[in-house]
Amino acid sequence: MNVTTDHATPTLDDVAREAGVSTATVSRCLNTSDLVSKKTRDKVMSAVELLGYTPNFGARAMAAKRTFTIGAIIPTMENAIFARGLQAFQERLHEKGYTLLVSSTAYRPELEAEQIRSLVSRGADGLLLIGYERDDAVYKYLERRRVPTLAAWAFSDDSPLPSVGFDNQASMLELCNTVLAMGHTEIAVISGIVEGNDRAAKRLEGIRDSLRAHGIDPDRAPVIETSYEIENGAKAFEKLMQAPARPTAVMCGNDVLAVGAMQRAREMGMDVPDDVSITGFDDIELATIVTPQLTTVHVPHRQMGRLAADELIRMVEKDSIGESSQLQSSLRLRGSLKALDDLPANG
Amino acid sequence: MNVTTDHATPTLDDVAREAGVSTATVSRCLNTSDLVSKKTRDKVMSAVELLGYTPNFGARAMAAKRTFTIGAIIPTMENAIFARGLQAFQERLHEKGYTLLVSSTAYRPELEAEQIRSLVSRGADGLLLIGYERDDAVYKYLERRRVPTLAAWAFSDDSPLPSVGFDNQASMLELCNTVLAMGHTEIAVISGIVEGNDRAAKRLEGIRDSLRAHGIDPDRAPVIETSYEIENGAKAFEKLMQAPARPTAVMCGNDVLAVGAMQRAREMGMDVPDDVSITGFDDIELATIVTPQLTTVHVPHRQMGRLAADELIRMVEKDSIGESSQLQSSLRLRGSLKALDDLPANG
Repeated sequence: MNVTTDHATPTLDDVAREAGVSTATVSRCLNTSDLVSKKTRDKVMSAVELLGYTPNFGARAMAAKRTFTIGAIIPTMENAIFARGLQAFQERLHEKGYTLLVSSTAYRPELEAEQIRSLVSRGADGLLLIGYERDDAVYKYLERRRVPTLAAWAFSDDSPLPSVGFDNQASMLELCNTVLAMGHTEIAVISGIVEGNDRAAKRLEGIRDSLRAHGIDPDRAPVIETSYEIENGAKAFEKLMQAPARPTAVMCGNDVLAVGAMQRAREMGMDVPDDVSITGFDDIELATIVTPQLTTVHVPHRQMGRLAADELIRMVEKDSIGESSQLQSSLRLRGSLKALDDLPANG
Repeated sequence: MNVTTDHATPTLDDVAREAGVSTATVSRCLNTSDLVSKKTRDKVMSAVELLGYTPNFGARAMAAKRTFTIGAIIPTMENAIFARGLQAFQERLHEKGYTLLVSSTAYRPELEAEQIRSLVSRGADGLLLIGYERDDAVYKYLERRRVPTLAAWAFSDDSPLPSVGFDNQASMLELCNTVLAMGHTEIAVISGIVEGNDRAAKRLEGIRDSLRAHGIDPDRAPVIETSYEIENGAKAFEKLMQAPARPTAVMCGNDVLAVGAMQRAREMGMDVPDDVSITGFDDIELATIVTPQLTTVHVPHRQMGRLAADELIRMVEKDSIGESSQLQSSLRLRGSLKALDDLPANG
């Protein structure tokens, strides 16, 4: 195999020569620049700039023991489900001198495993993952590689990772209790795909818990599982409405599905909430843009992003072995949910 | 400085010993696995899996001359402005065996420069950037490092990069022509921040061109520049409505600003489009979720993402030195825009 030297890539020696200092001084500038005089630093950084020198990853990682890069792997970049929390995560990382690289899996576990390896081999100092349900092999790999890893968007005793999140099950249970307290008894559910998604599974479990506690057989409530896209929420809603006993309230696994359900309701000539109540989960921006506004579970996305960044950096800098934080979600009761007593006689 | 060997990190030798093959065979498996028998490959990959071996970045890059990682740097992950195009970009990359790492700049040029260096030093084979307006130093750096780089979301003769995008100026000009043809003469504009954002600048220029061509002094049209957030669109709308001569149509630099304007209109008791018409740009999902639906410029996000992936991979694999593609945008005339003749007498 021929490995040729790429003359386009400047070396540490080139920088040292250009700046008129030793290579050790260049290295010190790049790794512990506070130990170098401003004058020397300026000289070296000008040479770095002029030559377009980028510290060789391996060498620099060995010298600094860190790459100041954090990887985050999220299920999707679409529909802004994770956008606000991730933006806050990135802002806090940046304040502390770290760069964020993000990768998305389209909710496919095998892609997540691949991206974890890729980020680790690109030298990520730490990883943020969403939720905690994943193959054991992935957890073993992370342990072997000793990569500080934090889970977000979920908080549960089941999690093998330290996590910064909220209790998806308890949050949805509380929302369902509220729906039932408003007199609804015919509940239908449009859930995210439960397999491999602990957040979706726990939310559905929360609804079932609430129904059971109110003496309703949870197996009686129709459930459609579908992936988080507006169009899928619309299709599922239409299907639920074809049942002989129409639900009076449709609880959705997230706001994206709920917005789809609301759109289809309108297209079918049904009024929300007069003909049917619809609820979501997440309180992303969509929730207040639709008419009527969506009743949903508010997730403190920005707070979660900031706390996750703080804790992950503590782990990377070996100030913590990983401490979990549980955040509080809260209900947002808006126009899409209405007490059943107020419902007009249904056609 | 002490550099200690991390015993947790398995080496190529460890894998070779575990699999009972030579290190050259392991290397061949990892880099050109189609030249190795399935039996040997299975043996090696089991050892890789068992030990949690990740090919050392530097060594593997030298061997494969590629890292199969593409970096994309986008202005923001919020509001899903880039989400759909980026998702298509990633899907196509994945089909071709590449992993995507994304980084976002919050529209801050100095952050973009930092992230470009970070992705290049992490070994990205190629970069996708949004638009083409950036510091010369960044272009010089990319040239020196010979990193294949493609611009998207913009197509213009001004671009120093090959680009896959659309003509922001001509698209907005066409929309403004349509608004004027509907009898509107009092146009106000809520624009993105023009400085450092060629897409925002060109869209505003398109409106000015159209006004001028219709004999309207473009300097007469009030323009508020603000960053792309729903709340900022709302504030700007309120301010525009306080002018003595109220605009009959408010043209917004993107859908996010337009949705904010629509929300504030409703809060102010104004009907869209009876009291005021509002238009957007991008045709992201928000546009069809609001009531009434938003008149906007449809951007072929998925097509753009796929084409950008194809071209960037050709550049990385040295099958192309970078060929630009211009995509066609198109108008979506929806309920938020109404001919002025239909307007009731305004209070």
